[in-house]
Amino acid sequence: MSRWKPDAAGRLIKAALALFDEHGYEATTVAEIAARAGLTKRTFFRYFADKREVLFGGSEELQELLVTSVAGAPPEAGPFAAVEAGLDAVAAMFTERHPFARTRARIIATNPELQERELIKLESLAEAVAGALRDRGVPDHAATLAAQTGITVFHVAFGRWVAQDDPAALGRLMLESLEELRALTAV
Amino acid sequence: MSRWKPDAAGRLIKAALALFDEHGYEATTVAEIAARAGLTKRTFFRYFADKREVLFGGSEELQELLVTSVAGAPPEAGPFAAVEAGLDAVAAMFTERHPFARTRARIIATNPELQERELIKLESLAEAVAGALRDRGVPDHAATLAAQTGITVFHVAFGRWVAQDDPAALGRLMLESLEELRALTAV
Repeated sequence: MSRWKPDAAGRLIKAALALFDEHGYEATTVAEIAARAGLTKRTFFRYFADKREVLFGGSEELQELLVTSVAGAPPEAGPFAAVEAGLDAVAAMFTERHPFARTRARIIATNPELQERELIKLESLAEAVAGALRDRGVPDHAATLAAQTGITVFHVAFGRWVAQDDPAALGRLMLESLEELRALTAV
Repeated sequence: MSRWKPDAAGRLIKAALALFDEHGYEATTVAEIAARAGLTKRTFFRYFADKREVLFGGSEELQELLVTSVAGAPPEAGPFAAVEAGLDAVAAMFTERHPFARTRARIIATNPELQERELIKLESLAEAVAGALRDRGVPDHAATLAAQTGITVFHVAFGRWVAQDDPAALGRLMLESLEELRALTAV
């Protein structure tokens, strides 16, 4: 029996990101990730279904926070205000994940399959938000538009956030993107 | 030699859609599609790489029309007005394709792989539109926001268009979605 290893998942993520970054995503194996983390393949598979999941494992948590925050917005909040409440909560969650998010974004940019996976994840997020809005009584059409637009704002601001140095900037960047979107569609 | 068969591509599309609709997309083979169209598999592969391409073959044409129309908008048009010019041109093109689009949407809704392909196609459209806007001198960030939002409006209106009976309604539905988006984000 190996001795107790604290935070195995965190160490596997750190090892995987370092290897993806050094040798490329495709060239890296699960065995190498486990070895770099000082753990076994068996331990890896206790936390992740495959190496791709190291990059996308946080999706459920993000979706749950977003949906809960949209649902929990004040009853008088309109559809888009409810989406903004969700995005605010998400921005706060991401601040401490800036170093991870930056490396992750760099790795995803190198691989079309990962880019597609990211796109599909964003679409699930938009669908989950639309569902949360419908549960608030928002008509289907408005719910879809508000949710899709909110995720567009999130996506664009996220891209700017990982390209700059301030970990706490995501909320401000989302607000800026939203203001810019308003100005763009107003004319 | 078989006798001359006019509009082989059109007949293959018609046969494929009928079979996808009757037996399901996955259960349908290229041999069956060719047979239903009165053509050979060899002829099928002259027009389409695989059966999925029957549903996505029009993408390049759509993208080219969109990009050309965004590029050709009056120089004084703002980013979103240029995107709207592109969407108008696309709406006109789609009117005569309403029956095809309806059946196609029904088939895509049955298959997650096709839904992912559709999503990726929409993302390429948005990227192509953003590129056309950057070529007009629009800054990167505004170009991405305007393009992504324009494609969201297109996507939502398209979903409503295939769910109703008027083939000429796409332009009006896009305008309605855009108005609704303005109202949603204005508060």
